[in-house]
Amino acid sequence: MIKKNIHSVTAFAPATCANVAVGFDILGFAFHAVGDSVTLTRRNDNKIVIEKIDSTEKLPSEIERNTASVVIQKVCEDLRVNHGFSLHIHKKIPLSSGMGGSAASAVAALVAFNAFLESPLTAHQLAQYALLGEEVASGHQHADNIVPCIFGGFTLVQSASPIAVIKLPTPDVTCILVHPHLHVPTREARSVLAASISLKDYIKQSANLAAFISCLYSNDKAILKTSLTDILIEPQRAQFVPGFYAIKQAALEAGALGVSFSGSGPSIFAFADNEAEAANIANAMCDQLKLLNMNYDYWISSISDQAAHVTEIKQS
Amino acid sequence: MIKKNIHSVTAFAPATCANVAVGFDILGFAFHAVGDSVTLTRRNDNKIVIEKIDSTEKLPSEIERNTASVVIQKVCEDLRVNHGFSLHIHKKIPLSSGMGGSAASAVAALVAFNAFLESPLTAHQLAQYALLGEEVASGHQHADNIVPCIFGGFTLVQSASPIAVIKLPTPDVTCILVHPHLHVPTREARSVLAASISLKDYIKQSANLAAFISCLYSNDKAILKTSLTDILIEPQRAQFVPGFYAIKQAALEAGALGVSFSGSGPSIFAFADNEAEAANIANAMCDQLKLLNMNYDYWISSISDQAAHVTEIKQS
Repeated sequence: MIKKNIHSVTAFAPATCANVAVGFDILGFAFHAVGDSVTLTRRNDNKIVIEKIDSTEKLPSEIERNTASVVIQKVCEDLRVNHGFSLHIHKKIPLSSGMGGSAASAVAALVAFNAFLESPLTAHQLAQYALLGEEVASGHQHADNIVPCIFGGFTLVQSASPIAVIKLPTPDVTCILVHPHLHVPTREARSVLAASISLKDYIKQSANLAAFISCLYSNDKAILKTSLTDILIEPQRAQFVPGFYAIKQAALEAGALGVSFSGSGPSIFAFADNEAEAANIANAMCDQLKLLNMNYDYWISSISDQAAHVTEIKQS
Repeated sequence: MIKKNIHSVTAFAPATCANVAVGFDILGFAFHAVGDSVTLTRRNDNKIVIEKIDSTEKLPSEIERNTASVVIQKVCEDLRVNHGFSLHIHKKIPLSSGMGGSAASAVAALVAFNAFLESPLTAHQLAQYALLGEEVASGHQHADNIVPCIFGGFTLVQSASPIAVIKLPTPDVTCILVHPHLHVPTREARSVLAASISLKDYIKQSANLAAFISCLYSNDKAILKTSLTDILIEPQRAQFVPGFYAIKQAALEAGALGVSFSGSGPSIFAFADNEAEAANIANAMCDQLKLLNMNYDYWISSISDQAAHVTEIKQS
């Protein structure tokens, strides 16, 4: 069942931007400007070992707490793989940034693992395993990062259990992703959310969601601009990022088509019409962060249809 | 401003099916198998008069309570039209049936009125006036019947105030509309709705809404079938129609792609793949209604892109 001639596999999984203003827990897209890589090397013993983590930050290295090792352990158990793996995690996505880092590590590990299999698992099966990593990372099996990470492009999670995925058209926009150097754990960002919403707000939000899905197909940028408005979740999470509204306002004034949190924040995405506008918008956002004396990183990228994928295979 | 040579105008406005399971207050489509017509005849005095109502049911004939006369009175005031109109209302849409009858009468009257104008009002302006009729009929300015009635086809109300409309692709389905002879006033059907919904239910419903909008573009009938599920509103309104779940189940077993209330009910719509299946599904639904000893009407029609329109102009 495991190919005998493979020594190690490295896979890359992109950062992902979930929620996308109007699609709480259901929408997301892949952002390839940054991502995690995992190298899986076959061991002679039965152990799952985190050999090395390349990261500027402190990541959990206990097998049970790291999303990459958790999912590899589980899939090896289920498939009764009779040897272990060493994991080398190249962590580029900042921790607790709202950029889908926990999903990316788990997905990269699973995609690398899949290359060892004579009969590879389907994308849906990989997604189901990756969900276990999200459970470990945030206490909640949300699929809105995993799905765009595994499937690429712009995705809708119609159902998380069992996973039902719809690939949406990739919008013709340039995306700016700004990461203020704050830690907002998903668990905490989730705990502040009210357990219920008013029917009135529901109607408004769902109208904008429907309009947004429609404009992904019609490529109507005027509708994109009016529909990317989150009245439900964003107001509850703005507290985590001092100056959020100033940053957002600066992006909109610089011509952004839409701006909101990436996932549960603190990272903020903005959509621009083209690369030149994206550069202006990024500058405007960064100027605000400087005024706030906040450190940050940012990336600019189109939304790629590419999924997480193998980057290197070493034969034994 | 009013054309001098026109004596009377008749306009037809189709029945409409609002909500469509997943789009509470925002989605709707035109159903041309049945509709209301209004003939507007120029008067020599300043009065708005309901001259005649053709209907098997008792409709309000006070100018302030009838949706057709209310909107004509208002538009005449606003445009300072210096004479009145007599209204002859041909009411074919059953009262309190959830088939958009109040919207259709108002829209037919407005479309007829518009033909008198040298510079006709836009569809958006007509919709804004028609909303006043909905306020009179149900105490609530909901636009999800008015908009498909005026614009035709399948529509999304992105915003009710000001009215923002998106015309969605017309799904390639045959629609069955069954009207059990029960009266469910919109006002009452609205009053039973909980003022808030859980975040969990919101996520599920919004995922199905997004999937449904997506499949209108992709024409993926498999997704249409899984997405037309209303977990929010339908369970709260099922109480108004004894046997609703049996009727729904019968339709699904007969092959319906989706079944739910038309508007606030009691009418029930079902989507079928084609006309032959539609006939079977209608039979299955009607069999249930017979078992329940309920009288009913039903109609079968494709969803037409046609909007409310003028059917006759008499010159003076």
